[in-house]
Amino acid sequence: MTSQAIEDAMRRALELAERGPANGVNPQVGCVILSPDGDIIAEGWHRGIGTPHAEVDALSKLSPDSSRGATAVVTLEPCNHLGHTGPCSEALIAAGIAKVFYAVSDPNPAASGGAERLRQASVEVTGGMLADAVSELLHPWLTATRLGRPYVTLKWASSLDGRAAASDGTSQWITGETARAHVHQQRAAADAIIVGTGTVLADDPSLTARDADGGLLAEQPVPVVIGKRAVPAGARLHGHPKPLIATASRDLETVLRGLYTRGIRHAFVEGGPTLASAFVAAGLVDEYLMYLAPTLLGGPRLALGDLGIGTLAQARRLSIVGVERLGEDILVRARDVDAFASDRVDQQEGKER
Amino acid sequence: MTSQAIEDAMRRALELAERGPANGVNPQVGCVILSPDGDIIAEGWHRGIGTPHAEVDALSKLSPDSSRGATAVVTLEPCNHLGHTGPCSEALIAAGIAKVFYAVSDPNPAASGGAERLRQASVEVTGGMLADAVSELLHPWLTATRLGRPYVTLKWASSLDGRAAASDGTSQWITGETARAHVHQQRAAADAIIVGTGTVLADDPSLTARDADGGLLAEQPVPVVIGKRAVPAGARLHGHPKPLIATASRDLETVLRGLYTRGIRHAFVEGGPTLASAFVAAGLVDEYLMYLAPTLLGGPRLALGDLGIGTLAQARRLSIVGVERLGEDILVRARDVDAFASDRVDQQEGKER
Ligand SMILES: NC(=O)c1ccc[n+]([C@@H]2O[C@H](COP(=O)([O-])OP(=O)(O)OC[C@H]3O[C@@H](n4cnc5c(N)ncnc54)[C@H](OP(=O)(O)O)[C@@H]3O)[C@@H](O)[C@H]2O)c1
Ligand SMILES: NC(=O)c1ccc[n+]([C@@H]2O[C@H](COP(=O)([O-])OP(=O)(O)OC[C@H]3O[C@@H](n4cnc5c(N)ncnc54)[C@H](OP(=O)(O)O)[C@@H]3O)[C@@H](O)[C@H]2O)c1
Repeated sequence: MTSQAIEDAMRRALELAERGPANGVNPQVGCVILSPDGDIIAEGWHRGIGTPHAEVDALSKLSPDSSRGATAVVTLEPCNHLGHTGPCSEALIAAGIAKVFYAVSDPNPAASGGAERLRQASVEVTGGMLADAVSELLHPWLTATRLGRPYVTLKWASSLDGRAAASDGTSQWITGETARAHVHQQRAAADAIIVGTGTVLADDPSLTARDADGGLLAEQPVPVVIGKRAVPAGARLHGHPKPLIATASRDLETVLRGLYTRGIRHAFVEGGPTLASAFVAAGLVDEYLMYLAPTLLGGPRLALGDLGIGTLAQARRLSIVGVERLGEDILVRARDVDAFASDRVDQQEGKER
Repeated sequence: MTSQAIEDAMRRALELAERGPANGVNPQVGCVILSPDGDIIAEGWHRGIGTPHAEVDALSKLSPDSSRGATAVVTLEPCNHLGHTGPCSEALIAAGIAKVFYAVSDPNPAASGGAERLRQASVEVTGGMLADAVSELLHPWLTATRLGRPYVTLKWASSLDGRAAASDGTSQWITGETARAHVHQQRAAADAIIVGTGTVLADDPSLTARDADGGLLAEQPVPVVIGKRAVPAGARLHGHPKPLIATASRDLETVLRGLYTRGIRHAFVEGGPTLASAFVAAGLVDEYLMYLAPTLLGGPRLALGDLGIGTLAQARRLSIVGVERLGEDILVRARDVDAFASDRVDQQEGKER
């Protein structure tokens, strides 16, 4: 079998992975099974918690005869733990798979070790193929799993001079319809949406993911309020389709670890400015979504306040992932350079295996 | 002759216009002369003050016989005043030109009336062809001439959260090399570079347009300092290749009108924040160049301070002309919506003629 055939299969596995849900506890994984001649004989992908893993999904389409001696090409290192479905490493061994190629190692300590287990059973295992592309797809999940806290996307909407509201506090709507619809899609794609008590008390937001007509989207993030003050009994948040998590705390790390144990892997922080600044200052933001409206406002209502940065050399450095126009507005997507750098290291490690 | 032939000639005239210098008192103008069959028989463009206008440049390449009965296609309405070269309307009449097509009317009261003068001499005159494209090329010059003050480009460099410096005042270098080189090109393309006394006293800038090695570019803007305080005798600005204009004034409108009478049509305002905010608040900015570095700084050193805007509905609305990546940085180019709107009206008027 040529290495090109295996790379093509990995690309296909990546396509299959993308069919799965991007949020939740489990990663998107795709798997392709190749005959000894290099023909695709089965495909599988993971459809979310409680459903078979990609390898098991693919194997389920084969008779024991056809899987014996075949090659499995899978985007993530096969798991080695007893989750809802039993370890994939054992399933591959039982099916008589001869070779396994995977892209990215499983950073989850409870699930990793699949490659080792397969090698013990004399399966030929190679990791690191297409690691960059797969790491990119799994970036939030990999980061969350490595850090033991949700991947944090911080969003704000501001004028081009960095104001989140006019002097009198008016901020609806700084950005236009297209940008607002984009925000709702991002909410739906996240596991949780986080705001500070200040925003709850000032705006009484509903924090649902909605379409242009105000209808609820199919996926809804869990609403989370950070801060010591109580959420008023009559707050709209109590009517959210997902039950509210009111933290009564300002300890961001502890709050995030708590969310992780509840299965939240991707949190979307929507502000306000005080909470946003606290997240940035604590180095707890992985990704930024800045919606910049084509306006200037001046005045005191900044999207970010103080970050504890004294001199230019201490600036929080970002890596810009994309700049796009959303209607009249501009969306800047960026990642924290440090978070990004450590992710690169992971990929390199994956390659060396 | 087909209207397509005339439109093609206008496109060619626009190309010729672009060969001329973009700054200075005179606009970029191109001219194509067509035989009665629609063949190009001469081309001309304006090379800057003291040199022939485009029409005269083109006519100079023809014998009197060949210009008789020909069609002149010119990007700007032929002038009607005695400048350095005598009115173009008279030159066209004397050459026996039968038809004149132009794109944009001359907004300069001292020069306009050329179309009228030509019609009086029984030349067939049509205005407005390709007016949008030509107006775009001449946008700064048209705006300046209409308003009787320089076209004002305001530049700032900031972090993505709108800070021009860190808390301790360090601001060199917020943006990277590519962005800084771009700024120097913009300086060279402007007639004047303006800063406030605060920047002069804090930074002692040289305000020259330089290449990457620090060498002077061929074109240098006139340095202008706005503010009541004196420029120190030992300031680097006194060594600028163009003599310094120190205004000893805070009256922006009066300063700008004074610069206009000195032949300055395009001024590049580089800050600092106090002067920049005053320009924005006074509605005296036509174009914005915002160099956004991929950093966050927080803190009190804002690129723009207060703009006298109380509520969101009063926001200064911009129209984004372009967003580009310059190395790691982002350049947002925008125009003031109101200035832009009035320019559109001009173009419409041009079309209706
Ligand atoms: N343009 C936008 O994108 C946008 C988005 C959201 C909100 N807003 C506007 O922002 C305004 C609210 O601003 P805000 O800054 O007061 O609201 P906020 O950031 O939502 O809430 C601030 C509060 O969060 C609590 N908190 C929790 N963890 C904290 C920590 N680690 N450090 C500091 N405080 C922490 C504190 O309250 P406790 O005393 O309860 O602990 C603090 O007073 C509203 O007017 C809203 O309209 C704008
Ligand atoms: N990141 C960037 O793009 C950038 C660019 C330039 C400067 N900077 C930084 O900005 C700092 C200087 O800031 P700054 O705001 O003090 O400097 P500035 O804006 O250059 O100067 C402010 C002064 O300009 C005068 N002025 C003239 N017309 C005025 C008007 N209409 N309204 C108000 N003031 C007027 C006033 O001084 P008088 O009392 O003399 O009238 C005022 O104090 C420096 O540290 C510099 O490094 C950053």
